[in-house]
Amino acid sequence: MKLYAIGESSLLKTIRRRFTVKSKDVIVGIGDDTAVIKPSGNNLLATTDMMVEGIHFDLNLTTPYQLGFKLVSVNVSDIYAMGGRPQYLLLDIALNKNTEQSFVDRFFDGIRRAMKLYGVFLIGGDLSSSRKDIVLAATLIGDAKKHIRRSGAKPGDRIYVTGNLGDSACGLEVLKRIKQPFHIKKTIQDARYKIQDKKNHESCIMNRASEPLTLNSDLSKLGLTWNIVSPLLKRHLMPEARNPEKFIRYATSMIDLSDGLFIDLSRLCDESRVGAKIFIERIPVSGRMRTASSLLGLDAMKLACSGGEDYELLFTAPADKKINAVYIGDIVKSGRKIIDKNGGEKKFSASGYQHFETQR
Amino acid sequence: MKLYAIGESSLLKTIRRRFTVKSKDVIVGIGDDTAVIKPSGNNLLATTDMMVEGIHFDLNLTTPYQLGFKLVSVNVSDIYAMGGRPQYLLLDIALNKNTEQSFVDRFFDGIRRAMKLYGVFLIGGDLSSSRKDIVLAATLIGDAKKHIRRSGAKPGDRIYVTGNLGDSACGLEVLKRIKQPFHIKKTIQDARYKIQDKKNHESCIMNRASEPLTLNSDLSKLGLTWNIVSPLLKRHLMPEARNPEKFIRYATSMIDLSDGLFIDLSRLCDESRVGAKIFIERIPVSGRMRTASSLLGLDAMKLACSGGEDYELLFTAPADKKINAVYIGDIVKSGRKIIDKNGGEKKFSASGYQHFETQR
Repeated sequence: MKLYAIGESSLLKTIRRRFTVKSKDVIVGIGDDTAVIKPSGNNLLATTDMMVEGIHFDLNLTTPYQLGFKLVSVNVSDIYAMGGRPQYLLLDIALNKNTEQSFVDRFFDGIRRAMKLYGVFLIGGDLSSSRKDIVLAATLIGDAKKHIRRSGAKPGDRIYVTGNLGDSACGLEVLKRIKQPFHIKKTIQDARYKIQDKKNHESCIMNRASEPLTLNSDLSKLGLTWNIVSPLLKRHLMPEARNPEKFIRYATSMIDLSDGLFIDLSRLCDESRVGAKIFIERIPVSGRMRTASSLLGLDAMKLACSGGEDYELLFTAPADKKINAVYIGDIVKSGRKIIDKNGGEKKFSASGYQHFETQR
Repeated sequence: MKLYAIGESSLLKTIRRRFTVKSKDVIVGIGDDTAVIKPSGNNLLATTDMMVEGIHFDLNLTTPYQLGFKLVSVNVSDIYAMGGRPQYLLLDIALNKNTEQSFVDRFFDGIRRAMKLYGVFLIGGDLSSSRKDIVLAATLIGDAKKHIRRSGAKPGDRIYVTGNLGDSACGLEVLKRIKQPFHIKKTIQDARYKIQDKKNHESCIMNRASEPLTLNSDLSKLGLTWNIVSPLLKRHLMPEARNPEKFIRYATSMIDLSDGLFIDLSRLCDESRVGAKIFIERIPVSGRMRTASSLLGLDAMKLACSGGEDYELLFTAPADKKINAVYIGDIVKSGRKIIDKNGGEKKFSASGYQHFETQR
């Protein structure tokens, strides 16, 4: 059934029923003029991020479930990057009236999955129609006993990231060639991946070990297998935000990698008024990403340094602390350099995704 | 200059410079992963509202300044309707890359004007491109020592509104016939209204007393004057949210009138599990609205009861309290009736604007 046949108030009732909050700190949840929250006493964190159809996502390449999950994750990533605890979510959703109810249901399934994962409550939102494109925005409120800014890095600090870079950007490149949504399904035993044929709704389920059945022939010919591409697709479609709790007490500055290593590290350097030296060999790149980008004729290091949406954390900590993350370089007084394995130096600048600009 | 020639980061820098927060409670404002706020100790309120091009506004009928002002006002109205104090604003803005920088500048002028009026600080946001339509969302955080829900109305309470109903809906009807944006300009002495001719950018300034110069001939022929329509247009384009401080201590339930009296009163009754009796003669309607709707062949009472976007407050209070607002009816045990001047009763139901539905 399409939204125009359901109407706003009926849709709102369903959402409200599904997301009744059971928390003693939520005094008023969805359904009044505003939500009312009991304060924790800690400082309050607030962030907002939007996802726009045709800009951030393509409905031919992503499922509503993945959209919902990702919308929450990207906001949680900002709260984590500040050293905080994510708590309360507000959603703004503009949908075309021809949208199917099942789309909305799956979208909220994804929202709910992410809420469970991060311990977040939905406390309010706004639902609107749109003439064409779907626009999603989420505001996330959290708290922090001690927050970590972008501005605390000092010369001598080491630079760390929490995981592989470029997987998401490479996943997006694969997805553009697969040209259909990729359904991620997890079983208890192992990760299984389900590819749904858009046209006839037949689907095939395969586990990590099996050979690709429906990976289109162009990709198979290149030597790509589901085993290689699945984790890359997952990182792009359903990124999980990284919780900094293991190293938070040592972090002097932090940012999440949403627009690419070079651009986000430049932001951290700008705010801290310092320079940085990155060792190219130390940048963590997954074997799968290296293989896939090589088979697709892409530059793996470019994806790792300038590809967006990694949602790993980039942070600095004093050199004498034992840190459970990947050491990629050092904070210096000034200059922004990347050092290759032979000790050759090159400048890097803030390059990565920028809205409004002609895409590179 | 258009946005694609300016780019996201340059635009963000300008916004950040313009909206540097000088408040001891804002520890981190725009420019980090999240904002950081010192808690007041009161309960926290949070609300969000969006405005979508082609649904909530038409750029042929509204200016960016008015859009910015209204976006803040509609969110403040929700905080006021909860009995709270508006404090911190986050914005989500999706703009077409062909949007002129001047549009963005004027939009933020409107935002800033409203922020000053309501004592609100901008602490964060997200800026995105969009393929076509402009989408605006604002999240407003506030606090309240004592919040007023929709659910506290008791049989015997009186029902009040804070001002004239239907002005905004009537203003929209006039605007659709004027077919051009209406520039509202206030001088120190009196309200002056400026009409800008879209085609040749000539403008004429007139005060309340003068006769219309550029009101198009169809409307002039009907007998409409700027004196009549200006306040109606202003209520639609730049609604000011109503602060409930004068009666807040007596209010038992409250809601803001965004979708129309009948629909919003029905919501209040639903939440309070009560009925309502409204006296049609008591519904406050401005003389200007009555005149304009009569000249335009519109039903003034329909606009007052089902027209949206009044942003007046609807609330209930015990009958024995002296309340500085307009008494329009009584809360009863059950039933929803409207009583005419002869004592005739008619049922009313939740009718007003609903997203996704075919418009009435």
